[in-house]
Amino acid sequence: MSDKHIVSGFDRDLAAIETSVAQIGAMARDALRDAITACLERDRDLAAQVKTGDHALDRLEADTRLATIKLIALRAPSAVDLRFVLAVLEICAHLERCGDYAKNIAKRSTELGPHAQLAGTDRALLRMSQSVGQMLGDALAAFLDRDVDKARAVIASDLETDHSYNSLFRGLLTYMMEDPRNITAGMHLHFVAKHLERIGDRATGIAEQVIYLVTGELPDDDRPKADLTTPPAPSAG
Amino acid sequence: MSDKHIVSGFDRDLAAIETSVAQIGAMARDALRDAITACLERDRDLAAQVKTGDHALDRLEADTRLATIKLIALRAPSAVDLRFVLAVLEICAHLERCGDYAKNIAKRSTELGPHAQLAGTDRALLRMSQSVGQMLGDALAAFLDRDVDKARAVIASDLETDHSYNSLFRGLLTYMMEDPRNITAGMHLHFVAKHLERIGDRATGIAEQVIYLVTGELPDDDRPKADLTTPPAPSAG
Repeated sequence: MSDKHIVSGFDRDLAAIETSVAQIGAMARDALRDAITACLERDRDLAAQVKTGDHALDRLEADTRLATIKLIALRAPSAVDLRFVLAVLEICAHLERCGDYAKNIAKRSTELGPHAQLAGTDRALLRMSQSVGQMLGDALAAFLDRDVDKARAVIASDLETDHSYNSLFRGLLTYMMEDPRNITAGMHLHFVAKHLERIGDRATGIAEQVIYLVTGELPDDDRPKADLTTPPAPSAG
Repeated sequence: MSDKHIVSGFDRDLAAIETSVAQIGAMARDALRDAITACLERDRDLAAQVKTGDHALDRLEADTRLATIKLIALRAPSAVDLRFVLAVLEICAHLERCGDYAKNIAKRSTELGPHAQLAGTDRALLRMSQSVGQMLGDALAAFLDRDVDKARAVIASDLETDHSYNSLFRGLLTYMMEDPRNITAGMHLHFVAKHLERIGDRATGIAEQVIYLVTGELPDDDRPKADLTTPPAPSAG
């Protein structure tokens, strides 16, 4: 019982969902950009904006997820359309987590407020933030363009993100060991680095969904990980 | 067109999904219990078991999520049944995250290996771990029993978890400030404490889904948070 009217209604629903995903993605990228600024510049007002923005992101994501589920119930999609709705659900979840990580990064601006900046690591954090922001943008572009090559490139770049994290981890340790007054700031910045690394993982997860969407197969789950934050040998007191 | 045969088939599908959720929940609780043991006792073999177990948890969760989506497509549930499948999807996501946190806790056993134990915080971490494990168990029991009161109790106990986290954060800072040789271990244990706090948040999220499932309303999103890891005033060199 093919009915052009029904198919085009379904297509409109799918297009609307895709637009929402793009919108949530843009919100997540903006949140990340503002969050790292708020954190490194100890800007509490900007941090408050990120928090408010995250509420909006969460609401849009919940609405989109619900609309997708309802579409499944209404249209009982199969094959490519089913893969699309499944991928959308996964991508939405990844983006919601990215928003949360950004909010947590911004929140640290308050805890870091009284502390001097650890200039070397601030630069490294900013670079890492720009890098994972780029991964996120590329993953979303890959989704909108159904671009498997771009998705694979995002997945490959996650190894570099892990290396940046390891590097930051070690750098922060040296600041903390040099001077106990750096320990608290070092702690919070460690968490920021970890959140950035997790955003990179999420961008990678989105890219994997793109590959699933286009090819019907998830890429091999065991992608190389390089979180080698093993401790240096303790120095004598 | 009511057909007892179709309804009972649907009921069987729902029951199977519920059983899977209970199973995933049990796996998450076991993972947490083994992970904190592996971490505090520096037991790499147990940590490896937790990692393997997490693969199994992820697979069962993905299968359950897919079965739930297919059920939505096939049966187009409405009202309470739709709330059930929506709640299941959320609960599965929370449990998958709990499994990941447990795996990360276990992994730290490797990084902590060479380091002396920080005895005071080890005890506090173990207590916190048992406490969030209890929250997780209670949230799952609330789901299986559709018990709103039990769910509310879990949500209320999350504040205590946040206090435990703050306390551990400060305790670890003192160890790190006392002796630079404690810094690396302190860092890793900080992450462990944070992962435990996040498991508590996830248990709370599951409890919120129970309330949604039974009442049709999510509880007020702004539950009291007490992550007050503000830095102590820096001491003079």
